[in-house]
Amino acid sequence: MGQAVKAYERLAQRFERMAVLGEASSMLGWDASVMMPAGGSAARGDQFAVLASLSHEMLIAPAVADDLAEAQSSPLEDAWQARNLALMQRAYLRATALPTSLVEAMARANTSCEKIWREARKQSDFSMVSAALTEVVALTREQAQALSPVLQLSPYDCLMDGFQPGIKAEDVTPVFKAYRAFLDGALPKVEAMQARKPKALALQGPFAADQQEALCRALSLRAGLEADHSRLDRSTHPFCGGIPTDVRITTRYDESNFAKSLLGVMHETGHALYERGLPAAWIRQPVGSAAGMAAHESQSLIVEMQACRSDAWLGWLSQELATYFPKEGAALAPANLALLWRRVERGFIRVDADEMTYPAHVMMRFELEQRLFSGELQVSDLPEQWNKALHDLLGITPPDDAHGVLQDIHWYNGLFGYFPSYTLGAMAAAQLMQAARQADATIDEAMARGDLSPLLAWLRQQVHSKASFYGFNDLLRSATGKPLAPEDFTAHLTRRYLQD
Amino acid sequence: MGQAVKAYERLAQRFERMAVLGEASSMLGWDASVMMPAGGSAARGDQFAVLASLSHEMLIAPAVADDLAEAQSSPLEDAWQARNLALMQRAYLRATALPTSLVEAMARANTSCEKIWREARKQSDFSMVSAALTEVVALTREQAQALSPVLQLSPYDCLMDGFQPGIKAEDVTPVFKAYRAFLDGALPKVEAMQARKPKALALQGPFAADQQEALCRALSLRAGLEADHSRLDRSTHPFCGGIPTDVRITTRYDESNFAKSLLGVMHETGHALYERGLPAAWIRQPVGSAAGMAAHESQSLIVEMQACRSDAWLGWLSQELATYFPKEGAALAPANLALLWRRVERGFIRVDADEMTYPAHVMMRFELEQRLFSGELQVSDLPEQWNKALHDLLGITPPDDAHGVLQDIHWYNGLFGYFPSYTLGAMAAAQLMQAARQADATIDEAMARGDLSPLLAWLRQQVHSKASFYGFNDLLRSATGKPLAPEDFTAHLTRRYLQD
Repeated sequence: MGQAVKAYERLAQRFERMAVLGEASSMLGWDASVMMPAGGSAARGDQFAVLASLSHEMLIAPAVADDLAEAQSSPLEDAWQARNLALMQRAYLRATALPTSLVEAMARANTSCEKIWREARKQSDFSMVSAALTEVVALTREQAQALSPVLQLSPYDCLMDGFQPGIKAEDVTPVFKAYRAFLDGALPKVEAMQARKPKALALQGPFAADQQEALCRALSLRAGLEADHSRLDRSTHPFCGGIPTDVRITTRYDESNFAKSLLGVMHETGHALYERGLPAAWIRQPVGSAAGMAAHESQSLIVEMQACRSDAWLGWLSQELATYFPKEGAALAPANLALLWRRVERGFIRVDADEMTYPAHVMMRFELEQRLFSGELQVSDLPEQWNKALHDLLGITPPDDAHGVLQDIHWYNGLFGYFPSYTLGAMAAAQLMQAARQADATIDEAMARGDLSPLLAWLRQQVHSKASFYGFNDLLRSATGKPLAPEDFTAHLTRRYLQD
Repeated sequence: MGQAVKAYERLAQRFERMAVLGEASSMLGWDASVMMPAGGSAARGDQFAVLASLSHEMLIAPAVADDLAEAQSSPLEDAWQARNLALMQRAYLRATALPTSLVEAMARANTSCEKIWREARKQSDFSMVSAALTEVVALTREQAQALSPVLQLSPYDCLMDGFQPGIKAEDVTPVFKAYRAFLDGALPKVEAMQARKPKALALQGPFAADQQEALCRALSLRAGLEADHSRLDRSTHPFCGGIPTDVRITTRYDESNFAKSLLGVMHETGHALYERGLPAAWIRQPVGSAAGMAAHESQSLIVEMQACRSDAWLGWLSQELATYFPKEGAALAPANLALLWRRVERGFIRVDADEMTYPAHVMMRFELEQRLFSGELQVSDLPEQWNKALHDLLGITPPDDAHGVLQDIHWYNGLFGYFPSYTLGAMAAAQLMQAARQADATIDEAMARGDLSPLLAWLRQQVHSKASFYGFNDLLRSATGKPLAPEDFTAHLTRRYLQD
């Protein structure tokens, strides 16, 4: 074995150990959200901190620089190994580019700002959190500027790269511009069409939480998740956590409406299936991880939005629901479920938005972030600029900051460059679904039997098994023959919302 | 700050970090027993191994030897710091005395033997596991011999010291001898008295698991455990896990009999209260940890056996149970509960034994272990010697090895020197209860109202808050004025079982 290969093997062992610490942290994170009594939180914080710091120490150790140099001294034959090495290099660069003092200052500022934000949102008063957010933005800017020369990306692209490697602002801008043009024309048409449709029959309820949970678990398993490798539990904020061999989905139950938990669990099931489908041979290596936030969101949305809101699947679901909630009668008819769950509406809140207006919420945040990081905007400008941007896109103005600039946790927790992932994921989901249908004509007839396995088989082969071998656009190119393009998404929306 | 104090502070920081890793491991252990789907077990094993190995690396690092030497170079003023330093030294010595190759060989041999034992016990065939146990014993002997010169203890005492620091075989032998003399006289008398008593009314049931769980949780909280710092869940084997600010109790429910879960949860509550009462100022330091297995068992047994099987508490419980299980009627009368839950019986199985015969099971294991480690016995002699020893003590002979030498997991998992802790704990519980009653005359009248708080207050002050400041016998001396002595235990048994 050559010296380069030996150095690579040492790095692979080190990254495996770091990944195992990450697994421990992930499981403890699940426990903190789902099981932990309040009195355990201080100790849990220390556990996270020690695990993160040990992992960080392993990553920035001098031996890593030596091994990276040695491993790169002669090319690795295996393309996956070569990609893995490049991702290790990137992780090392990101970790060593920032002084420890900055990392600690960011952690403190983010934690403090998030706490203030919770109160500010409750009181709908942006001025309460303005100073703390200014500090967060200043530190994030410092972080982006420190990363920029090292990653050879613009400062804002360094932030985006932290969530979705391989995507820059210049990739996103034309995509969003095209979508904007589509939306301006489509939204009034959809609203006019909806106005002509019959009113949806309301669900009556109540729907006992235990029964909803049984339904959600059954649907999640039917979608392909294995009982031996997953759990479904309850938490205030739904998420998909855990590790690839032990994925942990959570949701919450509203006893007056089962739709949120049902579609929420199918969303998380999409995330979970991605994790389950990552290649076992590359587990715990950078190249064996999911390809980024946008890629992950494409997998949750292809299940939730593409499959589970399709006519085919709703047709099947309608009968299934009748066995759980027989008293609901005609409200469970497929056409009524479509009326209930596929309604387009201009609203203030991103997380409540339908799939057509959702990108507008993302686009305005993307633009505000860029103007903030270019120095054009100050933090104090945000509430006014927010309301202006929303009005410009959707023609509505938030009644207060709680329904405007204070609604999302992201900025107040130092997450800038994250929002585009949601819409890139939604677009990628449509693009992948289109390619999947072209590759396998049985996908829709299977969905009409409540069977997602042909779709899942295609995703396993084209997306899950590729892990991080490709960047986001290359992954789409490999699976669909082209990089991210909004036309499959707009075609999907046109079919679903603009045809009678 | 002098050099010695600085070195001590560095050690304290290191041990704190190690303790935090131990906390992570403990929470993951709880999850593995209570929540984890089967498919997560391989990854979980890796998580445990990496956490343990990181912690071990921290403990055996060369800097530790330097800091220990430096910290010991001039005496620390604070007695707790001095004790803490001594316990650090002891942990370092135990960890460095064993070559890594031996530690790994033991881990492999124990895991493999335990697996074979599960099958051997199922088939009641000791010969299946004899070779694997021989390997375990050989490696454990090697371990004991490596520790012996370092700890300046006999090899067998080194094993005992691993579970209950400060206790040697020579401390235990006379205590067990005295108990043997008591038992030989007392057991036939109790049996004769029991034969004259009325037959207990059986509980009818069924007792729904959810209802049992609500009852157990309520009793556990009433005993002093705080809802914000604890959980009660279900697992195959009941245990108390977690960490001092987040204790996790488990049990299992038999719907035909609520007694096992109820008394089992009170037992685990005793363990949990001990952890909750450890001094916050010394958290994550060796001196701030519980004082050992026997000390821990004294706290579970003082709650389960001393308090919750007392006439006073059963009188209160009787009324409480009537609100949960009104159909049971007279079977819930205090005297009937005493007949059901305080019955002495010669049996084959240690974990099913009553408090009077339980020590016999421990004494025979203690003797067999010593003869095994002195070389007098071979592993192949164990089944016959086991049956002989039980017959000698209780006059009964196991029908097969599953009811004899194969019943306990301990030896097959490399745990030798552990068993005495159970009986030392039972005796200490009686001794502490006696001292508590002498110190606070209100303890029994409070128990008669279902109120354990006076007892708990005394335990907090005399035991919990002392953590590992004392060794086992010194802890008893400090709390009761004398080292472990069996007479309080035999006096307790005499009062409970030999008075009409």
